[in-house]
Amino acid sequence: MSKPSIPKGTRDFGAVEMQRRNYIFDTIRSVYRLHGYRQIETPSMELLSTLMGKYGEEGDRLLFKILDSGDFLSNISHQDIEEKNLPRIASKLCEKGLRYDLTVPFARYVVQHRNDITFPFKRFQIQPVWRADRPQKGRYREFYQCDADVVGTDSLLCEVELIEIINEVFERLNIACSLHINNRKILAGIAEVVGVSDQLTDLTVAMDKFDKIGMDGVLKELEEKGISEASIERIKPFILLEGSNEERLMSLTSLLEASEVGKKGLEELRFILNHINTEQLSCEILFDPSLARGLGYYTGAIMEVKAKEVEIGSITGGGRYDNLTGIFGLQGTSGVGISFGADRIYDVLQQLERFPEETASSTQILFINFGEEEVSLLQPLIRQMRKNNIAVELYPDNAKIKKQMTYADNLSIPYVVLAGSEEIKSGTYTLKNMLTGEQSLLSQEELFARFI
Amino acid sequence: MSKPSIPKGTRDFGAVEMQRRNYIFDTIRSVYRLHGYRQIETPSMELLSTLMGKYGEEGDRLLFKILDSGDFLSNISHQDIEEKNLPRIASKLCEKGLRYDLTVPFARYVVQHRNDITFPFKRFQIQPVWRADRPQKGRYREFYQCDADVVGTDSLLCEVELIEIINEVFERLNIACSLHINNRKILAGIAEVVGVSDQLTDLTVAMDKFDKIGMDGVLKELEEKGISEASIERIKPFILLEGSNEERLMSLTSLLEASEVGKKGLEELRFILNHINTEQLSCEILFDPSLARGLGYYTGAIMEVKAKEVEIGSITGGGRYDNLTGIFGLQGTSGVGISFGADRIYDVLQQLERFPEETASSTQILFINFGEEEVSLLQPLIRQMRKNNIAVELYPDNAKIKKQMTYADNLSIPYVVLAGSEEIKSGTYTLKNMLTGEQSLLSQEELFARFI
Repeated sequence: MSKPSIPKGTRDFGAVEMQRRNYIFDTIRSVYRLHGYRQIETPSMELLSTLMGKYGEEGDRLLFKILDSGDFLSNISHQDIEEKNLPRIASKLCEKGLRYDLTVPFARYVVQHRNDITFPFKRFQIQPVWRADRPQKGRYREFYQCDADVVGTDSLLCEVELIEIINEVFERLNIACSLHINNRKILAGIAEVVGVSDQLTDLTVAMDKFDKIGMDGVLKELEEKGISEASIERIKPFILLEGSNEERLMSLTSLLEASEVGKKGLEELRFILNHINTEQLSCEILFDPSLARGLGYYTGAIMEVKAKEVEIGSITGGGRYDNLTGIFGLQGTSGVGISFGADRIYDVLQQLERFPEETASSTQILFINFGEEEVSLLQPLIRQMRKNNIAVELYPDNAKIKKQMTYADNLSIPYVVLAGSEEIKSGTYTLKNMLTGEQSLLSQEELFARFI
Repeated sequence: MSKPSIPKGTRDFGAVEMQRRNYIFDTIRSVYRLHGYRQIETPSMELLSTLMGKYGEEGDRLLFKILDSGDFLSNISHQDIEEKNLPRIASKLCEKGLRYDLTVPFARYVVQHRNDITFPFKRFQIQPVWRADRPQKGRYREFYQCDADVVGTDSLLCEVELIEIINEVFERLNIACSLHINNRKILAGIAEVVGVSDQLTDLTVAMDKFDKIGMDGVLKELEEKGISEASIERIKPFILLEGSNEERLMSLTSLLEASEVGKKGLEELRFILNHINTEQLSCEILFDPSLARGLGYYTGAIMEVKAKEVEIGSITGGGRYDNLTGIFGLQGTSGVGISFGADRIYDVLQQLERFPEETASSTQILFINFGEEEVSLLQPLIRQMRKNNIAVELYPDNAKIKKQMTYADNLSIPYVVLAGSEEIKSGTYTLKNMLTGEQSLLSQEELFARFI
C-alpha cells in the first residue's frame, strides 16, 4: 500500500503550527472585536452563479467546482463532448463551487439578509478560501483569509478605524510595518490630467510596478500600451513625487487642480491622514500615489501593508468599494474592508522568530504511570487539578519511565510528577522540572500552589 | 436580478449564532486542552483514493467530489458516456473530494506523519465536514465535528478520560445527560452464545432498535433476518436485562460465561466503570447491552450521549477501534475517540434557553457621533479605552440621534455615551444604560472606572 498523501497545494497543520496559527487568528479576532466588528460565517460552497464572473476570466478558471450529486451527466449531450467546450461542460456538471475569497460571499450575504441587518454593518470573517492556482512556495490552494468590512456608510472614519486596527494587530504581533495608502480617485485624476482616462488600468498597472522595474521600465510599459509620448511626459512628475506625505499631497494638489475626481481623492486622503494619530501609530503611514492594487472593485481609498524586516510582499490589504453589492442587485451600499494574509504573517513571524514561546501542548504536568494501584490513588488529585483549570495528563500505560519521560520531552511538557504508591499515601510528590532537571519533593498543597 | 441564495443544506451564521456556536466550540476546546489533547487541522480536500471505500457504498455516494482543474475530460471516452456508469465517470472527472468526517483524515494523518508523531497521540480537531445527504430539518450538508482521539495505546484509562471529558463539557454547558456505554466484544459474545456469530450485524442492528420498536419489533426483525427460533429464544434474556449497571454486569457474567470474547468485553467494561468516579459525575452512566452504534470500525467500548431534557437523539458518540490506520497500511495502532455533535448541542441549548446571556456584539459602549469637531475630541478617549481593552464603537456618521440609538439597541450594545463638544472639553460625559434607560453624568475617570 502506498503511503497516503494529500492533494497538492494543501497542508496538514500539526500541534505546534496550530498553536502559532491560533496565536495569529486570536490576535486578529480580539482586535476586530475590540473595535465592534461582529463575526459571521458563510458556507464553504456557494452557487456558481454567485461566484462566476466576479473574479475575471482567470478567477473563473481558478474556482474549484463541485460535481453535482445524482445524475450529473443528464444535461451533457454528445455535441458537448464533441465540441469540448470545457467551461460550458463544467457549468453543466457543477452547480456549486468553493468560495474564492470572503468578499463576494459577504456581498451575497448582505444582499440576502439585508432586511435583518442593522447598517452600518461591521462584520469580520475568518475562514478558508480555495483557489486552483498552480501551487508554489508560499502559495496554497487552501488558505485562510481574515477580513473585516463596514458596509452601509461612506464615512471616512471607517478607513481611519481600519488603519488603527491594522496598527494594533501588528503592534500586538510585534511586526514593524509600513502602510502604503492611495486613493483610486487620485489615480483616476492622474489619468484624467495626463489624458489617458480610457486607459486607466494600463496606466495604474504600469505605475504600480515602479518599485520593481524603475522609471525606465514604467515608461517602456506605458509606451508598449500605446500611450502617447506627450501623455508619458506628463505622467513622469507623478511617478517622481518625493518627500513626506504632506509634501506629496501639496505637489499633487497643484498637479491635479484641473481634475474634480482627483481633488476629491486628495480631500479624502487628507481627511484620513488628519484623523489617524500618526505619532501614536507604530506603523509607518506612506502616501504612495503609484499604489494601484487589483483595481477590480475599489473606488476610494486603497491600502497595502508591508513588513519592514522581511521581504515578502503585502501582508495585509484593503480599500473602499462603492458598489460591491450592486452585482447582486443592491445598489448604493458603500463599503470598505481589509484582509490580513495569515500565511504571510506566519512566515514573517517565523523568520523573525517572534512567535511567543510556546509548547506543543498546553499541558503543565505529566503524571508518570507506575501501575494500576498508583493510578487509582492519583486520579482524585488529577481530577482536582483539572477542576482548578490546571492542564495535566496521566500517561495512559505503565510503560518504562524513560519512555514516559521522552513523551514529556517531545511534547515540551514542562513538569513531570513521579510518585509511587507509598509516596502518594504519605502525601509527597516528586516534581521534576523538565527544562532544568531540578527535582523538588512537595506536599499536595505545595503542588497545587505551584500551578494555580 | 434574482435574490441571491446559498446551496441547499448549507447555512449562513450571523453574529448572534456565531457567538453561540463559539461558546460551544470554545467550551469543548478548553476541556480538550485541559486534558492534554493537541489540536491539528487537515485540508478540506482529500484525495478520493483516501476517502473512497471507507464509508460504505452509501458513503461513497455522499462524498462531494471536486471537478479536476485543467482538461477534466481527457480520460473520458465516448464509451464512458454511452455506458453512463456514473461512479466510474466521476472517478475520471475528479481526483479530490471534501472530507466526510474527521476520522478517516485523522487516520491518514497518523500514517503519513507517523515518524514525527509522539505516541500515544492525543489529538483534537474541530472542523467542518461535508455530506451530499438529502437536506432535512437538523441535517446539513456542511456541519462541524469536534473530535478527540487517542491513538497508539490500548489503555482503558483513555476511555475513562474521554468519559470525564464528556462529563466536564456537558457540566460546563449545563446540559443534563446520560451516557450509554457498551462494548463491541459483549455484542460479539452475545452473538456467539446464541449461535449467530455469522449474523452479528443483523443481531446488533435489531437489538439497537429496542428503544424504538420494543421487544416484539426486535423479535420480528430477527425472524425476518432468518435467525432461527431457537436462537431468538436465547436472545430474549439479553434484551430483557434490567437493573443497575452492576446488576446487568452480574447477569451478563453468567450469560456470557461460555464466550471468551464476551468475558473480555465485560472485563473491559468493568475496568472503565470502576475507574470513573460515578458519584462525582453529573452525567448518568448507563450500561446498555443493546447499544450497537454504526459498527463500522469499532472493536471495543462504544458510547453515546443523550440529553435528558430534550428528545433529539445522540449528541455525542464514540468508541474504540483497534485497526483504523490499517486501511492506510499501518497495522496495530489501537485508538479510541469521541465526537461532539455541535449542531444538536446548539439545538438543545436553544430549546432549554441555556445559552449564556449574550449580545450581538462584544461592544460595551457606543459613542454617539455629533459631528466632526466632537469626533476629533473623542478619538483620544476612544483610543485610550481600546488600549485598556474596552470594546467601544464610534458611530461613523453624524446621523440623527434616534438612528444611532436604534443601532445600539438592535445590536444590544449595553451603554451609549452622549457628549457634545462643550461637555467633552469640560470632561463630562452622559452615559446611558440602554437596558434601564438610566443616565449618569460622569467624568472621564469615572467612565473608565466603570468599564475596566
